[in-house]
Amino acid sequence: MIRVRVVGAGGFGGANIIELLTAHPEAEIVSLVDVDGVGEPISRKHTHLKGLCDLPVTGPDDAYPNEDVDIVFTATPDGVGMTVAESYLAAGIRLIDYSGDFRFNTAEDYAQYAQRIGRSPDHAAAGLLSQSVYGLTELHREEIAKASLVGNPGCFAVSAILGAAPAVKERLIDPDTIICDAKTGVSGAGIKPSATFHYPLRYENMNAYKIAAHQHNFEIERELSRLAGTDLRVTLTTQVVPLCRGIMTTIYGQLVNDSATARDLFDAYAAFYRNAAFVRVEPAGVPVSNNDVRGSNQCVLSVNMDERTGRLIVVSHIDNLMKGQAGSALQNMNVMFGLDETLGLRRPPFFP
Amino acid sequence: MIRVRVVGAGGFGGANIIELLTAHPEAEIVSLVDVDGVGEPISRKHTHLKGLCDLPVTGPDDAYPNEDVDIVFTATPDGVGMTVAESYLAAGIRLIDYSGDFRFNTAEDYAQYAQRIGRSPDHAAAGLLSQSVYGLTELHREEIAKASLVGNPGCFAVSAILGAAPAVKERLIDPDTIICDAKTGVSGAGIKPSATFHYPLRYENMNAYKIAAHQHNFEIERELSRLAGTDLRVTLTTQVVPLCRGIMTTIYGQLVNDSATARDLFDAYAAFYRNAAFVRVEPAGVPVSNNDVRGSNQCVLSVNMDERTGRLIVVSHIDNLMKGQAGSALQNMNVMFGLDETLGLRRPPFFP
Amino acid sequence: MIRVRVVGAGGFGGANIIELLTAHPEAEIVSLVDVDGVGEPISRKHTHLKGLCDLPVTGPDDAYPNEDVDIVFTATPDGVGMTVAESYLAAGIRLIDYSGDFRFNTAEDYAQYAQRIGRSPDHAAAGLLSQSVYGLTELHREEIAKASLVGNPGCFAVSAILGAAPAVKERLIDPDTIICDAKTGVSGAGIKPSATFHYPLRYENMNAYKIAAHQHNFEIERELSRLAGTDLRVTLTTQVVPLCRGIMTTIYGQLVNDSATARDLFDAYAAFYRNAAFVRVEPAGVPVSNNDVRGSNQCVLSVNMDERTGRLIVVSHIDNLMKGQAGSALQNMNVMFGLDETLGLRRPPFFP
Amino acid sequence: MIRVRVVGAGGFGGANIIELLTAHPEAEIVSLVDVDGVGEPISRKHTHLKGLCDLPVTGPDDAYPNEDVDIVFTATPDGVGMTVAESYLAAGIRLIDYSGDFRFNTAEDYAQYAQRIGRSPDHAAAGLLSQSVYGLTELHREEIAKASLVGNPGCFAVSAILGAAPAVKERLIDPDTIICDAKTGVSGAGIKPSATFHYPLRYENMNAYKIAAHQHNFEIERELSRLAGTDLRVTLTTQVVPLCRGIMTTIYGQLVNDSATARDLFDAYAAFYRNAAFVRVEPAGVPVSNNDVRGSNQCVLSVNMDERTGRLIVVSHIDNLMKGQAGSALQNMNVMFGLDETLGLRRPPFFP
Repeated sequence: MIRVRVVGAGGFGGANIIELLTAHPEAEIVSLVDVDGVGEPISRKHTHLKGLCDLPVTGPDDAYPNEDVDIVFTATPDGVGMTVAESYLAAGIRLIDYSGDFRFNTAEDYAQYAQRIGRSPDHAAAGLLSQSVYGLTELHREEIAKASLVGNPGCFAVSAILGAAPAVKERLIDPDTIICDAKTGVSGAGIKPSATFHYPLRYENMNAYKIAAHQHNFEIERELSRLAGTDLRVTLTTQVVPLCRGIMTTIYGQLVNDSATARDLFDAYAAFYRNAAFVRVEPAGVPVSNNDVRGSNQCVLSVNMDERTGRLIVVSHIDNLMKGQAGSALQNMNVMFGLDETLGLRRPPFFP
Repeated sequence: MIRVRVVGAGGFGGANIIELLTAHPEAEIVSLVDVDGVGEPISRKHTHLKGLCDLPVTGPDDAYPNEDVDIVFTATPDGVGMTVAESYLAAGIRLIDYSGDFRFNTAEDYAQYAQRIGRSPDHAAAGLLSQSVYGLTELHREEIAKASLVGNPGCFAVSAILGAAPAVKERLIDPDTIICDAKTGVSGAGIKPSATFHYPLRYENMNAYKIAAHQHNFEIERELSRLAGTDLRVTLTTQVVPLCRGIMTTIYGQLVNDSATARDLFDAYAAFYRNAAFVRVEPAGVPVSNNDVRGSNQCVLSVNMDERTGRLIVVSHIDNLMKGQAGSALQNMNVMFGLDETLGLRRPPFFP
Repeated sequence: MIRVRVVGAGGFGGANIIELLTAHPEAEIVSLVDVDGVGEPISRKHTHLKGLCDLPVTGPDDAYPNEDVDIVFTATPDGVGMTVAESYLAAGIRLIDYSGDFRFNTAEDYAQYAQRIGRSPDHAAAGLLSQSVYGLTELHREEIAKASLVGNPGCFAVSAILGAAPAVKERLIDPDTIICDAKTGVSGAGIKPSATFHYPLRYENMNAYKIAAHQHNFEIERELSRLAGTDLRVTLTTQVVPLCRGIMTTIYGQLVNDSATARDLFDAYAAFYRNAAFVRVEPAGVPVSNNDVRGSNQCVLSVNMDERTGRLIVVSHIDNLMKGQAGSALQNMNVMFGLDETLGLRRPPFFP
Repeated sequence: MIRVRVVGAGGFGGANIIELLTAHPEAEIVSLVDVDGVGEPISRKHTHLKGLCDLPVTGPDDAYPNEDVDIVFTATPDGVGMTVAESYLAAGIRLIDYSGDFRFNTAEDYAQYAQRIGRSPDHAAAGLLSQSVYGLTELHREEIAKASLVGNPGCFAVSAILGAAPAVKERLIDPDTIICDAKTGVSGAGIKPSATFHYPLRYENMNAYKIAAHQHNFEIERELSRLAGTDLRVTLTTQVVPLCRGIMTTIYGQLVNDSATARDLFDAYAAFYRNAAFVRVEPAGVPVSNNDVRGSNQCVLSVNMDERTGRLIVVSHIDNLMKGQAGSALQNMNVMFGLDETLGLRRPPFFP
């Protein structure tokens, strides 16, 4: 059994990885860490876990690396993973971090990211950046298999990169024309209450935020540039709509081949993901929706063409808390430990 | 492996038992029956099942009993189960029916029920009524274990009976004072669209319906009368609130013992359910909510006392599609086949 | 023109009275007071008011009584109204307070209430209690017309009292059997974010809270006792369901007359409210719902009878922010100033 | 008083214009027409109108033009307005049609539109097309003032055209790069229930539909081409998100001037709409949301610039049932009758 510690157990990302791990046949949770509720069972805060996981919460200061742990999930905000990673790795413990702390391989790239979220550009463990691997399993499976340190991708980034990757890689579109219009459910903002997500102010509301200024932009550009073989920039608009779980990103790009058909585009996407257990590609005309992904680790892509304007339109659906967070994290753990990538992740969307 | 047929696969109740069965270690689905989508994979309608269950749908006329099936779930409206039960039973195939067709043991009791839902009082298979067992597992485990024919309980009935049973059985309350104020999510109305459940007319809406006239009233009275050892009548108010899954029934009864304390009441409830894997009892002051049951087979009971008026107040939470329907059905199947009652049903509530 | 000050302009109760006043033909807002956003236009916080009301917010310390004001609405939490009422009244300025500060006429009654909400039992302006009038217009119109100080009723109390009053007054039910099962939307909790009302934790959630311990209980009992001519106690269960605006209270009582018919009950209710512009009474079988009241000052009552148990069942619908708060407040202002009670309040429910 | 007939009174569009008209100081409803509920008061179906508008519904065959009517609103699906317009106009009665029947001025343009919605390309009153005026008040005020026949614009079109018009007119962007990513609430689909908008299938759902195939595309292109002085094509993606009222359209275009600043863009927009009572323009950084428009006739535009990619990003908010339908219709009526454009339309957004 893989022995797991979850740091940040009290958040949504913590709750979801706990749930997945309790049902995983090859993993067991050995410790839970959080700053709140120390000494109490985790099911005091996450009451839905009563009877399923009643482990006590340990405070961060009591949670130094120890020999009982094989892997740590830091389901924590930016800045936490970077302060604990070094000692875990030194003790031979692997680490998957949910935040942006380890999504970049150079101090410069991190600094650019950090600036957008109002953090210091100095990385507390810059020496580790070169060995960290970007945890989008579909694009980095081999490196993840050998990694000790994985930076789990941002939720918007997962939906945007998976949706644009085949088009960029196969040079179907002009790389300078990519626009990602992303809509997210509210759970992406985490468990901490705020005016913006207070029920009466949110239930019939929608809005764009961080327009042309969202920090996930950089990992999207980095990954797509790598696939394109050239530096490209994307426009990313992030918007909140009144549902809890789900991201729908609509991706636009100018087609470079005038004679391309909708079928060609679909075929290219289907071929690209032929071995991806968690990506389903559908041609234009087949209805897809958030209901196809909510609660599951699936990414569902609808590949369309606007013939009158010569544009590719891909609609990319994921559950932000699963493929956008905890699901990808577990998928990465499976890969890191040589297990079937889908272990513990085969559950269908929650319906209705 | 238990070989299962699901009749009514295209509804919510069908979708949910399919999901549960695909994850069940001792059961496999061998055929799906519905009037719609015949010949197509079930995942054409329930697109969220793509890749998990793509069995083709068989029409009802092609679905006669056959030797490959051990048990049939008729996840169908009133009137279907009663027309097919006889031939299945004759072929040695067990049957669990979701509707009211087999919740009563006499033609008279059925007739009273049928009248409330505008159906003929004549039961098409009245000869089977005496052998049918009411499928509220917590109260009828032994009979279910020996049964070939189970009438799965109504969703409101599950919440009301589980919430009132200990008080009635232990004679904590005057049996003539029971009021059940029930609030349900919309999924209880099924998958068929109607004006009442059209999103714009429902999203900020709530209302009572079938006031003092809901058909589940009778099975509640029958079960509680049995426990009380006397005929009692209850007032049941059914109300729809704008959520999808969940029933919260608040149960009132006049306490008979002036010196009873809140602790006494809790203790009686806890003792009554000490062996019930799917009933959790909480004392006054411990927060419980629909989040504790949504997506799970749990019933959560909060046991309270109004000291100023001498009343018991029990708040009973279930997921209407799980403990209120498919979950109870699978629990009954487990019992009927001698398996651990919780097999395939240990999943936590869907959160958040 | 009636010159109005709103204290607590930044909350939901403030926003709603501002909206109503801007459309009122005989009133004008002359000042807005709040602890937040002092010096900024109110439309900075309530952005939906841009162009409609851009008055600057005044801090409480700068808001002493002045000659420009005819009436003050203290749309504030418990404890504020009692500290400012005296000086306003001394200056000849009338006051309508939203909180429980002036709903009771004796220090003893207030103390009982205060205890339930964790406040000191000592009232800061106890000397004013004897002159305050309970602002449920339908029951106290004449006193309100002569009052300088009105304690606006609690939202649950409005729905419960209006729903039970005719039955109690006309002695249709045993006064010791009244149970009020109340369901409220989330806006009743105010504009301040909290975990309980964080969108992801609330959207598919429902729960009871303060079971047999809600502070509105006392004003319900006081008013109903007055109508009954005898001291009675009620059981009140308060529950939150996932919508923003609306209260549905289902009221139960044991009928005293065995031969009463549903029609008799309806007639008694219709007669009681024959002159009430904002109460609509419907007989059993006529569908009513939150859609009939949301955004309006209406109370809609459905009068039903459970023949099998001899109980009255009244379903009472109001919008908690209108008839349950700002609407009643404006209705009271109209009465206090000798205007048509419905002035500025004739708007239909918001639909859909 | 302007005497008004509403045809299609039973839909959302009918309900909303009825509400607006009942509060309008210069208009009165003289007749209501619908195919359903003939002979019954309209408040039988729209129960929220009880006491506000209880006029009986007339069947379409009994609703021939008569001298009592000054203007007709055909709040009806495509194909109705075109069959009744001629006789109304012949009788000197003006008409505002909600559908696409009169949004185009040539049979060819109509045919292209009709094809997208599966209707015959032949217009039943093609002779009237040349005199119909496109009812986007902000762009066609003078023509509307003289018109007898107005084709009210499509809801998506209102949000997209208002959002893009200044940029196109002032040649801020390359006219071949316009992408409109539109998200709508469910009420846009009308009052008729369907599986897609059944509450349990919609509440946590979102999806794109009619990708690159929505019929509103043509009126957007026609209006923007007119402003641009050149034929342009736009990509329009229509998406449904789980709220009732509201459209948020995010509009992208490549800036043609490398040295343009965000302030320049805002200034151009503000100047363009300086006289528009119902369009509010906000610069980047000022939060805007659906809460700013829901229930009101406002369009709110947030003008942003993606400096890294040289793109304009405008977020355009409207209420699809107000500025996107009934509000625009009433605004047009005001203009047609020489009234203040804002009469009866000054109500604030519904909050919260």
